[in-house]
Amino acid sequence: GTGADTNLYINQAIVFIEDAIQYRSINHRVDSKSLWLYRWYYSRTCQWILSLTITIILALAFIEKPSSLTITSDVRYRLPAWNPPCGLTESIELLCFLVFVADVSVKSYLIGWEEFWKNKWLMAYILTLIVSLTDWIVSLSFFCTENVRIRRILRPFFLLQNSSMMKKTLKSINSTLPEMASVVLLLAVHLSLFTMFAMLLFARTKDGQQDKEWVGYFRNLPDSLTSLLVLLTTANNPDVMLPAYSKNRAYSVFFILFTVLGNLFLMNLLTAIIYNQFRGYLLKSVQSSLFRRRLGIRAAFEVLSSLKETPANAQQSYVSFGALLQVLQKVEMDSRCKQAIMRSLKMCSCDQLSAAQFQKLFEELDKDAIKQHPPSPQYQSHFLQKMQFAFRHPYFGYLGNVVALANIVSICVVLVMDADKQPSERDDFFLGAINCFFILYYLLEMLLKILAMGLKRYLSYPSNRFDGLLTVILLILEIATFAVYGFPHPGWRPEFLGLLSLWDMVRLVNMLIVFRFLRIIPNMKFMALVVTTLLDLVKNLRAFAGILVVVFYAFAITGIMLFKGAAKFFLLLFQTSFYIEKVVVLYFKEKCDFVALLGHFEAEVIYCLLYLLFVNLICRWAKIYFVAWWLISSVIWVNLFIALLLENFIHKWDRRCHREPLSDIEYQRTVELMFRDVLEEPTEEELMEKLHQHPHLQLCR
Amino acid sequence: GTGADTNLYINQAIVFIEDAIQYRSINHRVDSKSLWLYRWYYSRTCQWILSLTITIILALAFIEKPSSLTITSDVRYRLPAWNPPCGLTESIELLCFLVFVADVSVKSYLIGWEEFWKNKWLMAYILTLIVSLTDWIVSLSFFCTENVRIRRILRPFFLLQNSSMMKKTLKSINSTLPEMASVVLLLAVHLSLFTMFAMLLFARTKDGQQDKEWVGYFRNLPDSLTSLLVLLTTANNPDVMLPAYSKNRAYSVFFILFTVLGNLFLMNLLTAIIYNQFRGYLLKSVQSSLFRRRLGIRAAFEVLSSLKETPANAQQSYVSFGALLQVLQKVEMDSRCKQAIMRSLKMCSCDQLSAAQFQKLFEELDKDAIKQHPPSPQYQSHFLQKMQFAFRHPYFGYLGNVVALANIVSICVVLVMDADKQPSERDDFFLGAINCFFILYYLLEMLLKILAMGLKRYLSYPSNRFDGLLTVILLILEIATFAVYGFPHPGWRPEFLGLLSLWDMVRLVNMLIVFRFLRIIPNMKFMALVVTTLLDLVKNLRAFAGILVVVFYAFAITGIMLFKGAAKFFLLLFQTSFYIEKVVVLYFKEKCDFVALLGHFEAEVIYCLLYLLFVNLICRWAKIYFVAWWLISSVIWVNLFIALLLENFIHKWDRRCHREPLSDIEYQRTVELMFRDVLEEPTEEELMEKLHQHPHLQLCR
Repeated sequence: GTGADTNLYINQAIVFIEDAIQYRSINHRVDSKSLWLYRWYYSRTCQWILSLTITIILALAFIEKPSSLTITSDVRYRLPAWNPPCGLTESIELLCFLVFVADVSVKSYLIGWEEFWKNKWLMAYILTLIVSLTDWIVSLSFFCTENVRIRRILRPFFLLQNSSMMKKTLKSINSTLPEMASVVLLLAVHLSLFTMFAMLLFARTKDGQQDKEWVGYFRNLPDSLTSLLVLLTTANNPDVMLPAYSKNRAYSVFFILFTVLGNLFLMNLLTAIIYNQFRGYLLKSVQSSLFRRRLGIRAAFEVLSSLKETPANAQQSYVSFGALLQVLQKVEMDSRCKQAIMRSLKMCSCDQLSAAQFQKLFEELDKDAIKQHPPSPQYQSHFLQKMQFAFRHPYFGYLGNVVALANIVSICVVLVMDADKQPSERDDFFLGAINCFFILYYLLEMLLKILAMGLKRYLSYPSNRFDGLLTVILLILEIATFAVYGFPHPGWRPEFLGLLSLWDMVRLVNMLIVFRFLRIIPNMKFMALVVTTLLDLVKNLRAFAGILVVVFYAFAITGIMLFKGAAKFFLLLFQTSFYIEKVVVLYFKEKCDFVALLGHFEAEVIYCLLYLLFVNLICRWAKIYFVAWWLISSVIWVNLFIALLLENFIHKWDRRCHREPLSDIEYQRTVELMFRDVLEEPTEEELMEKLHQHPHLQLCR
Repeated sequence: GTGADTNLYINQAIVFIEDAIQYRSINHRVDSKSLWLYRWYYSRTCQWILSLTITIILALAFIEKPSSLTITSDVRYRLPAWNPPCGLTESIELLCFLVFVADVSVKSYLIGWEEFWKNKWLMAYILTLIVSLTDWIVSLSFFCTENVRIRRILRPFFLLQNSSMMKKTLKSINSTLPEMASVVLLLAVHLSLFTMFAMLLFARTKDGQQDKEWVGYFRNLPDSLTSLLVLLTTANNPDVMLPAYSKNRAYSVFFILFTVLGNLFLMNLLTAIIYNQFRGYLLKSVQSSLFRRRLGIRAAFEVLSSLKETPANAQQSYVSFGALLQVLQKVEMDSRCKQAIMRSLKMCSCDQLSAAQFQKLFEELDKDAIKQHPPSPQYQSHFLQKMQFAFRHPYFGYLGNVVALANIVSICVVLVMDADKQPSERDDFFLGAINCFFILYYLLEMLLKILAMGLKRYLSYPSNRFDGLLTVILLILEIATFAVYGFPHPGWRPEFLGLLSLWDMVRLVNMLIVFRFLRIIPNMKFMALVVTTLLDLVKNLRAFAGILVVVFYAFAITGIMLFKGAAKFFLLLFQTSFYIEKVVVLYFKEKCDFVALLGHFEAEVIYCLLYLLFVNLICRWAKIYFVAWWLISSVIWVNLFIALLLENFIHKWDRRCHREPLSDIEYQRTVELMFRDVLEEPTEEELMEKLHQHPHLQLCR
């Protein structure tokens, strides 16, 4: 029946427009039931449940058995971590797996059988699920006593496959791999040739006094290789060459040559290669997003136009006003955009729309969101008007900044004066008094600004929100302090009362004041530019950071699995003998300095591993493990980061010149908008060709 | 008289063409005597004398009084350095100054009075000379006993002013300074805010056990600032946060935030800014060189054309064939270019040349030097022809590479096996025997290649020259070894005989073999690309390296002057007490780790300074001194280097795709040629406008 047909077409158009808004692919089933399923699958609730499931399964590592989520990381003091009973984490895991099974089934069904076979990500997803479930069954049948749990290493895959950005980024990284591998190979050749040279140069001599270099760094092949690898990371920079240098200055030539070639040339060559590969990355990704949006809109147009019986010989197809209105009412989209589209549709006042008009209508989606601040209140009183003028003036803001700076300086002075005082000698009166004064000023400033601008306008500026929130917190803290400890007076250092000691309260207040000082950022032009660049970068980096998290998670789990037993052995040694501790610490200081490089992310894993380096056999494994992690995190990821930063910054910097001065209107810029000038609109032919390739949609023409 | 005029014009043309060849400015006096002086000044001898003088005055620092050019750098063992008598270095200095006075007078005279006042570099040159000479007189009148010698710090200026490339680069760097200063300011704000935060966070507590972090790193303001600055250089990366982390894991958030913001964002932002500023630097510099060349040629054309009496109403001016020939014969230029120009001039076979023809003639200067290898010998014998085919085949070269690799591997195996043996247990037989075999193979390979290619052709390849030279040296060493120690046999470890012990001889041979392995580079495509990029980079970096040398020289001399006395005090302490040594070493290890970063260049200065950090007062000065050096060398210079590398590499990489495969013809590529496709030819109007602005040349038209 035509009624059902009409309904189907309308639904198709709705889904295609939603695809366009979300930059999704339109290659999915388009029959009525599938469309319902599709909208349900991509509904906020469903996607939220999926994200929650991924978060939960990743977070399980923190409470699972070999975890160490305790407050202190000191193995001597910390209490044994809570050990969940067998079956608890496993049942949570099973629930997560069931959600994933549902997810993969729906996804596979929606894209259709033919597409499924071409989609390697879906296949990998199913494979991962099968392996995980098998491992889960094995785990339960051993009553959680087995140590090797493959499924834990596979967990980050669920995060990876759920983000199309991350998949795209991974593809880009993948295409850079051959060149990166070449440079890494070059580095390896460089390292091995210099290692041989070093072993020949710093060989053992008959005179025991003379071969300090040999004893310290080049005793055998693994030692020499490690010494030079660490030198490549500059961690042992002058130490490694000092014994040889003190024997003969000329030996320094060897080390300088090695460092200049390896560190300055080859390492930076890697940066250049990665930057060269990623130069077009952002633009390309934005371009493909644009294509998806235009394609979705076009697909909606095509299905809607087949709804209206146009004569077969008509050259152009049209969409009727009514159908579009019906679609628009049902589409889920930003209400501001929807209103704007409705408005222009009504202004158009035509009965039917051509493809170009249709496309133009939806260009509202690409536009900047213009944010208009609410107006200030209009005061009748002359005095109030003058007040309003004075406190809305930028100079009042500058005065606030100066006062904040004065506060910072006063805190700094007190800190310097009190630096060497015993806690018992300390007098909190001075700091308490000046902070009290400054906080009163901040409160006054906030109130005057609210008076001048009105509460709504005041809150519409992010800098004011930041300011106001901190002022309120400071005020509450101050009042609480006075309530518990009384007003400040000389010799104001009462004993511990309430939740926090007076000293802690004062420190907290001071920290918040230092933090509040960041309000000066928008007032300094260059700082504002840098901060906006960084914020943009953070947006673009999400995919890269996600991939880093995936890799790190797999690495951390592997490390815990590999080195757990050994860690316990050392724990025992450590607890029983103080002497061993010293040896371990010294050994760690001297030998495993390169571990230092990894110290950022999960110091706990490293902390456990440090003891392992003590034993030579495990030390080698740990070395390989750490070198791999160093290569990925410190070499490749940092270079990727630099490449993206260069890309972002250069775009920003070029645009800075021809940009209007900051006005009352704030643009909410997105990456898409940054590149708008250079983006190419897809042509009609490209769109239609792509549409005709759609696996499920049969267009009439 | 016209004869004298003709001669003058010819001489002018000669000088202008030489200016064009050397990319020099043509804005100098053009009368006969000045031209003679100009050619004499820019003659090879004169310029060589000037360079020698600069080298000598810079090298004086190595033998002057507080110098320490001894073989060992160990203060306990080294002999007192040779102390030149008062007046020796001073008289050498005076000679150098006299050369500089002559240099500055000639230069000032040549560019003329008017230009002189505009030229700030010349003014600074004269000022430097006056200050240096005054200081020299003061120094002599104190009989060399005074310590502050300003003239030493000023010395690198002579190097700076003599290189136009360095002056140009300095100008570029100068224009980047405002942006760099902004980022450095941001870094300073970042550092100071986090320092305050840290001091509040890690304050002294009543419980002595708990404030390890405070004791170790945040005791007072300078300590906190240093700790965080060092963290910015990643030198004390996990150490600084371990005490706090072991108390509460949450403290690591502070350190991670600081490192991510400072090290990852702000530091790399500096890279981005510098790269952004230097993106066009190479192109701009090549473009201005091209303009100078075209201008010189055009100026030569104009003076030559005024020689020929053309009718005043003639639209175009011409240059006669004879005059040009006369000029060409007297011009000093590359003989290959000269021949090529002569050839095309004769092929032209016209009586007079227009400006365009004249310009075209000299385009030979811009062309690639095509290097044709001499032909192989033609053998009559069938057997020799077959031999020739076999040993000219690339596979023979690959075989040589495989044998070299096998040699390396065998040396490596022996090194690993002998790693822990006492020198007295060591048996050199095995290594001696295999090296003997391999060296014979290398000799055979060389001889066969010479047979196949002929000596001339063999030597025309740089890789063969490298190969052949090393093979001959290896052969000589091997023969010398056998002559002194006899042929290898089991238990071949005779006592010390001759210049070097057998073990040293074997080591030397092995090192040369490892070095010879570098012959594989041209066989690997990517390696060859990287190596040529690096060589190009080195060419372009000369100016930057020169500026670094200038800054480093000034810094080192300042350091020696500032810290000399203190170093002696510590030397005394050091020599008398072994206990102090331990304390100093420990203190240095813990406190002054950031010094490590500077360890590259003149470890001696640092070696002396390490003791200074012991004393708090001097420590602060040393800190400022080192932080300044770190900012310049490690932050700014390394970023400049990365920017240039990116620029070079991206150009190279883009060109790599549309480049013909390596053939028998080798191009000697220069930077100018790399950019040839994108360079803009200056227009006729620009050239003529510039010519009319010439301060000394009056053109007829």
